[in-house]
Amino acid sequence: MKNHFKKIALLLLVIPMFLYADEPAKAVDPVAEKLAEIDTLKVGLDTLWVLVAGMLVFFMNAGFALVESGFCQAKNTVNILAKNFVVFAAATFSYWAIGWGLMFGDGSTPYLATEGLFFLGGADNSPLTGDAYVGVYSSMNWTGVPLLAKFFFQLVFAATAATIVSGAVAERIKFHSFLIFSFILVAFMYPFTGHWVWGGGWLAGLGFHDFAGSTVVHSVGGWAALAGAIVLGARKGKFMPDGRTKPILGHNMTSAALGTLILWLGWFGFNPGSTMGVGDGSVMSHVIVTTNISAAMGALASTITAWVILKKPDLGMILNGTLAGLVGITAPCAIVSPASAAIIGIVSGVLVVLSVLFFDKIKIDDPVGATSVHLVCGIWGTLAVAIFGYEGSPAGVEVPSLITQIYGILAIGGVTFGVSMILWLALKLAGGIRVSEEEEVSGLDLGEHGAEAYPDFNIRAHG
Amino acid sequence: MKNHFKKIALLLLVIPMFLYADEPAKAVDPVAEKLAEIDTLKVGLDTLWVLVAGMLVFFMNAGFALVESGFCQAKNTVNILAKNFVVFAAATFSYWAIGWGLMFGDGSTPYLATEGLFFLGGADNSPLTGDAYVGVYSSMNWTGVPLLAKFFFQLVFAATAATIVSGAVAERIKFHSFLIFSFILVAFMYPFTGHWVWGGGWLAGLGFHDFAGSTVVHSVGGWAALAGAIVLGARKGKFMPDGRTKPILGHNMTSAALGTLILWLGWFGFNPGSTMGVGDGSVMSHVIVTTNISAAMGALASTITAWVILKKPDLGMILNGTLAGLVGITAPCAIVSPASAAIIGIVSGVLVVLSVLFFDKIKIDDPVGATSVHLVCGIWGTLAVAIFGYEGSPAGVEVPSLITQIYGILAIGGVTFGVSMILWLALKLAGGIRVSEEEEVSGLDLGEHGAEAYPDFNIRAHG
Amino acid sequence: MKNHFKKIALLLLVIPMFLYADEPAKAVDPVAEKLAEIDTLKVGLDTLWVLVAGMLVFFMNAGFALVESGFCQAKNTVNILAKNFVVFAAATFSYWAIGWGLMFGDGSTPYLATEGLFFLGGADNSPLTGDAYVGVYSSMNWTGVPLLAKFFFQLVFAATAATIVSGAVAERIKFHSFLIFSFILVAFMYPFTGHWVWGGGWLAGLGFHDFAGSTVVHSVGGWAALAGAIVLGARKGKFMPDGRTKPILGHNMTSAALGTLILWLGWFGFNPGSTMGVGDGSVMSHVIVTTNISAAMGALASTITAWVILKKPDLGMILNGTLAGLVGITAPCAIVSPASAAIIGIVSGVLVVLSVLFFDKIKIDDPVGATSVHLVCGIWGTLAVAIFGYEGSPAGVEVPSLITQIYGILAIGGVTFGVSMILWLALKLAGGIRVSEEEEVSGLDLGEHGAEAYPDFNIRAHG
Repeated sequence: MKNHFKKIALLLLVIPMFLYADEPAKAVDPVAEKLAEIDTLKVGLDTLWVLVAGMLVFFMNAGFALVESGFCQAKNTVNILAKNFVVFAAATFSYWAIGWGLMFGDGSTPYLATEGLFFLGGADNSPLTGDAYVGVYSSMNWTGVPLLAKFFFQLVFAATAATIVSGAVAERIKFHSFLIFSFILVAFMYPFTGHWVWGGGWLAGLGFHDFAGSTVVHSVGGWAALAGAIVLGARKGKFMPDGRTKPILGHNMTSAALGTLILWLGWFGFNPGSTMGVGDGSVMSHVIVTTNISAAMGALASTITAWVILKKPDLGMILNGTLAGLVGITAPCAIVSPASAAIIGIVSGVLVVLSVLFFDKIKIDDPVGATSVHLVCGIWGTLAVAIFGYEGSPAGVEVPSLITQIYGILAIGGVTFGVSMILWLALKLAGGIRVSEEEEVSGLDLGEHGAEAYPDFNIRAHG
Repeated sequence: MKNHFKKIALLLLVIPMFLYADEPAKAVDPVAEKLAEIDTLKVGLDTLWVLVAGMLVFFMNAGFALVESGFCQAKNTVNILAKNFVVFAAATFSYWAIGWGLMFGDGSTPYLATEGLFFLGGADNSPLTGDAYVGVYSSMNWTGVPLLAKFFFQLVFAATAATIVSGAVAERIKFHSFLIFSFILVAFMYPFTGHWVWGGGWLAGLGFHDFAGSTVVHSVGGWAALAGAIVLGARKGKFMPDGRTKPILGHNMTSAALGTLILWLGWFGFNPGSTMGVGDGSVMSHVIVTTNISAAMGALASTITAWVILKKPDLGMILNGTLAGLVGITAPCAIVSPASAAIIGIVSGVLVVLSVLFFDKIKIDDPVGATSVHLVCGIWGTLAVAIFGYEGSPAGVEVPSLITQIYGILAIGGVTFGVSMILWLALKLAGGIRVSEEEEVSGLDLGEHGAEAYPDFNIRAHG
Repeated sequence: MKNHFKKIALLLLVIPMFLYADEPAKAVDPVAEKLAEIDTLKVGLDTLWVLVAGMLVFFMNAGFALVESGFCQAKNTVNILAKNFVVFAAATFSYWAIGWGLMFGDGSTPYLATEGLFFLGGADNSPLTGDAYVGVYSSMNWTGVPLLAKFFFQLVFAATAATIVSGAVAERIKFHSFLIFSFILVAFMYPFTGHWVWGGGWLAGLGFHDFAGSTVVHSVGGWAALAGAIVLGARKGKFMPDGRTKPILGHNMTSAALGTLILWLGWFGFNPGSTMGVGDGSVMSHVIVTTNISAAMGALASTITAWVILKKPDLGMILNGTLAGLVGITAPCAIVSPASAAIIGIVSGVLVVLSVLFFDKIKIDDPVGATSVHLVCGIWGTLAVAIFGYEGSPAGVEVPSLITQIYGILAIGGVTFGVSMILWLALKLAGGIRVSEEEEVSGLDLGEHGAEAYPDFNIRAHG
């Protein structure tokens, strides 16, 4: 990376000659003109990759919508789909209006951005990079793409954090309560802690490493989800008076499986795309392979774990095991070998099954297992950076100590969980966040939307 | 853009030296050889983007199939899916055989292409551009990619227009009537008016601006759809004798929501891909952000509008509001700021809800709201070019006057609606275009295909 | 291609000067430095395309999962989805551990790879190409991308072969039997015969041409599928004692249609991506157009054939006709003209309908028509190379004789079918590969997974 910066810096001295070579009446130097095109090509190529990767991450909205609705009951499908649409739409606005600036604006302290806060409004001369960059979003000056490309890529990341919450609070939350929480999460909470790591804040200074967001994105979503699930309480009938847990089955495993495959695809934008540039292709290639291996091993490990514990190869566990492997490799994908990626995936796949059973045991009701996937494996992935990272990895950074990684996990987790609890409780006091018992029984589709997802089908009434 | 053309023209003088430098026994100049690779890289990069964008637009077929079938009844699902498949297959043939040539062939008048009409058969030396281009498809000589890449990208656009019609005539049209209409639309009507704008015809000469096709694609599909809906008449039972409108519910909101997300993704090929080249990445980046903001604001505006008017956040309206925002930004995406894109999206989201209610009121039955989305918001987006366009925008063109835009809307709309009416009426006279009443009640799946979409499920009989 | 190799070879003499030009205290030559960036850009661009194409092929997993489950009964949906997930996960491991090395490792004989066999463990200096390549995977030294990019792209191909089998053995195979077979197919069988063609083995030496795998991938999957269908026997009730065939209807045509569109999209990675480099974009552009035309004509031809024979435009046949056109063009896509592609697609579309009826007649039960699509049209496509190939095609190879192509088909088919029969029979002897009759009636979802795909819906019991 550094080598690239040197070259670019050098070029920035050389190129102006070419650019102004047109103006004298003298003959143009065709070699110099031609050489200047190389920089345009490089910016163009990097931009293409950042946008394509951003599109893949955008498409994860479809994945989340399908996984979440598939794992829930038919009577709440319209509600879940509507929530997923509106949360991305609201995130687009709030991250544009406030979130981006809070996350990537320069700051007078390492804790808070204080410049360029609203509507991408700060000075910026992207795609120039390194020392040639003059603007208020310095923490992103390592990638040579236009500002709007940076924004699009980061926006789709931010929306992911909000979508994670949606699953854990499904089947009982009021539509507008979720919207308010999501708006605040994307506008303030996510960028506030994200600034510490990716915005050049104090955790970046400590050497905390999270390549694509096991902590910055997934565990932030997971902590907010956990707080929501606690404050809301379990769905009616989930935990029976006699101490047993009643499984509430997902209504459409086709949706859930398709959604998981879409998420897997989207992760090829999420992780390899976090290079935010193509370079010589080696980092992207490394990251796509570690990502895929971890996902695959997560699927296999959860299959076997479920087969051993539950006596059946449970499809829900296979799907969550895949997602677990993806979340687990998100932080370390560029700093670990393919073999380490396999181990990270295996541990993720085992962890997620145990975690789902654990949350059931302590009576925290998370209908889709979002907390187990995104929080538990997000933490694991962040630790794996220190455990499996090697010097000279494609990430091109020093391997942080386990202490540093734990520090980051605790700081971000503490703030996010704490603020989320306060926010959920405040919303609860101010009018309530949970639908009525009758509405929960008849379904949120009828109650909140006056609609049915499948009006031509006979839907069974359950318990 | 012009600057690029100058550079390329210059190179065309320089490169031949390099190309023939091999042949003398003298030593090769490695610098000159190397410089020639820059042009190959540029063509390769642009081609990659055009093809990837074309693939995204191709995938919109899945989006349309799901939105349309999801918004219709279970008993017509096989018919709708089959229609969507066959219409794209037929469009591939008819646009290859006739449509491409009619749209992009050079013409001896500004109204009609007269050269290179059949099977891409004209002279062409793409990827050469500007003055270096020698061939009969001059209107496409601004993009430096191979002819077949241009064709693929334009083909998937053409097919979109036909697919739009499909939704408005669903649940009552005969399978073969739709196929005949679609074939003629893609082979003749769409390219005839498209030639005026994108083929270097008279509207292009006037300065009419439609970056990615609010008018050229969407409103053309919308006018043809409106004509079809009028000639066919409403579905049985939709408008009751007492003046009330009976909602005929969509059978699968999971399909409709997934389809809308696929369309949103596809639009990232549709709009940013209409650059048909990467350049320095700035136009693509701008367009993806305006496109996404308009879609998001369309979703939010339709949510709120439906909440106010219908008292519920209606999922169907949320989905159509998203599509409305996408159609609305299609023409102006490269000529307006992100803030203007937000306003365009908001207006689209409000318009689409009002339009759906309006068409119900005047008793034109459009099962999926295709006319409201593609025609109404297509017109709005074309007007928005003149209202919100600014000088020095990424589009790099002069902002046209509102009069010019209205002129284009009326000319293309008049011709398309008029010819569509004649064609639908001719098909009606020649054997009828509507299935029998019994078939409509029992469903087109059984009547036209002898099949059921969901044979393992109990399907409710409605009304 | 050869010309590129010459240039690259030349550069490899020139570049080192630039690379080491940094070290002396003397001034850096900015032109030389800049020129060296061209090579990085080229490797980056090619890698981007290979990875994006690989992602598209990866996404075919979703296509196969949906087509296969959609064409089968609701009661076996969880089983089919789980199978598709686990088979890709297992393929990731087995192709990484063994398959890649067996397929692309150098060999001391033209029949078998003997170097670099395990876990990508051999010497390799990719992205260097041609004579500059020093390593054990010489057969892949024509593409200038990092080793891990080559691996990812080939992995998703390998997994396709296993997934093809899944459809033909659906609704009656034991979960673990399928897993064992798939593992062996991907680890040993597929790479063993693949080595002969793409790994520089004896068929490559003969001039056998299969651009993207009509034989190497599709017919290999098809032969293994046919063997499985034969050894397993037909589903209960499919072939009635009185000689008639009972259609067992697919439970979800929405899934099947969406899956087919996803596969069509994925094929734009499969075929154009098999360039494994961008070059000047001309080969990719050619291949995407021939691929799309063949798919479209396959859809139209199967529609008409089904309309004539079955008296209805059967959606299942339309979908399989599309896939048939795609399989048929996979081998010849780079060596035939668009017009030839149309003929290849038409023949594929007719063939697949006749083949489905034929396999029913000889009482081989293939629930999704995998054998007709992948084996029959895979053979047809491989023959079409010799029939329609022309000198000077984008493939840049000599057109092989029909004899050569038949030779390859027979050799690969004979080995694959033979070994598959032995393996299926061995698995049958060792504990059985077929679920019990009761389990088949009640569904594999309950029997193998203790789950239902659609628990909120009333599922009809069939015969």
